[in-house]
Amino acid sequence: MRRLKCIVAYDGTDYSGFQVQPEQVTIQGEIEAALQRITGETIQIVGSGRTDAGVHAQGQVIHFDTASSIPLEKWRLILNNQLPSSIIVKDVEEAPAGFHARFDVKVKEYRYCIDNGPVPDLFYHRYADHIRYPLDIEAMQQAAGCLIGEHDFTSFCSAKTFVEDKVRELYDVRVERQNDFVWVICRGNGFLYNMVRIIVGTLVEVGQGKRAPREIKQILEAKNRELAGKTAPARGLTMWQVEYD
Amino acid sequence: MRRLKCIVAYDGTDYSGFQVQPEQVTIQGEIEAALQRITGETIQIVGSGRTDAGVHAQGQVIHFDTASSIPLEKWRLILNNQLPSSIIVKDVEEAPAGFHARFDVKVKEYRYCIDNGPVPDLFYHRYADHIRYPLDIEAMQQAAGCLIGEHDFTSFCSAKTFVEDKVRELYDVRVERQNDFVWVICRGNGFLYNMVRIIVGTLVEVGQGKRAPREIKQILEAKNRELAGKTAPARGLTMWQVEYD
Repeated sequence: MRRLKCIVAYDGTDYSGFQVQPEQVTIQGEIEAALQRITGETIQIVGSGRTDAGVHAQGQVIHFDTASSIPLEKWRLILNNQLPSSIIVKDVEEAPAGFHARFDVKVKEYRYCIDNGPVPDLFYHRYADHIRYPLDIEAMQQAAGCLIGEHDFTSFCSAKTFVEDKVRELYDVRVERQNDFVWVICRGNGFLYNMVRIIVGTLVEVGQGKRAPREIKQILEAKNRELAGKTAPARGLTMWQVEYD
Repeated sequence: MRRLKCIVAYDGTDYSGFQVQPEQVTIQGEIEAALQRITGETIQIVGSGRTDAGVHAQGQVIHFDTASSIPLEKWRLILNNQLPSSIIVKDVEEAPAGFHARFDVKVKEYRYCIDNGPVPDLFYHRYADHIRYPLDIEAMQQAAGCLIGEHDFTSFCSAKTFVEDKVRELYDVRVERQNDFVWVICRGNGFLYNMVRIIVGTLVEVGQGKRAPREIKQILEAKNRELAGKTAPARGLTMWQVEYD
């Protein structure tokens, strides 16, 4: 047996999320079915984390074990030939000894794309949330800065989050305008359920002038989901990269 | 009654082309259904031309007549609210007197997108054809130049083309590399069935070294579809803009 590590991109629009679920079309399900066709083995893949229905990835990392002797350099092409065009294997390598795609994550980066032009850009209609009134990027950046560091993110995760420990560290939260697009970039050691989408929803309300940047600190301290903004739509969110040691 | 002229973008991936067909989901069908919901009228729209199943548009032009008194500046938003996110109305204006979206076309521009990177770009997986071996752009450009001007394009249209007169004038055929992408840009006074896709399919064979650029002239002169290259896939083709006087 050997363990392979892959970087996978996907368009999550037409999938019920990453994780296998009965009767649903999922990213994991599609990849495992492709592996079965390729190797004849029943393979269970492990991802760095789940993504919700409609969320995309540019750099999801997975690992799996196989007895197949297919040479390393052929794997990417063989996998892509077996996968739908909405799932793309970007890289395949032998996993370092003892590597685990979920347990060994050091940094995760998500990017949220807002199409802030007067009319939606066709080529981003699946990958961006369209908000046509111009956003105040400086106010959003000021608010974003208050989220950096180690905090209890209870206010910024779904009320349905069942993990006990809601302390996470964000290494960077950045708001950048590129032509008509506004990108919110979040890097951290881990993210709670809906955390990036609630951060973005709150920053958007700041960018619309509905909230002051200084409210972020109060929202964090209150540990109350109801004080933060709406959950931004899944379509704009992309798991951008996952870093390991 | 007044006549409105609209510029429409669409992602053709999930549609059976522009033109209404029984039992099929089409761009025209979706727009006419939206107009019916908005105005209560049964409205038939006229496009600058059809696009085939899977072909996109950034600047399709349509016109339609309506008795509705909705103010001009509200139309775009109302239409976009009624349309799926894969169809975007970019502009609505009062049509000039006697305007006809199909009969009055002066220039049409199509762009074909080839993703020539080693691995497909996720965000272009619906809008580009992926060809992973690097293409010889200079050879393609040299071949493209031979297509400019007035020619009988019998060799470069589907054998199922029923129009008699296959003479068209191409004002420009250009091949441009932008990072990993290669764009083929065609401007002309009209295009035959599958013409851009057959031009692209032939230029790709030149770019792969399978044909010499000088063959283009011979292919044109032979007036025989079998001498040209394969029809490139619909996914890479976008009706880019339509120009009127």
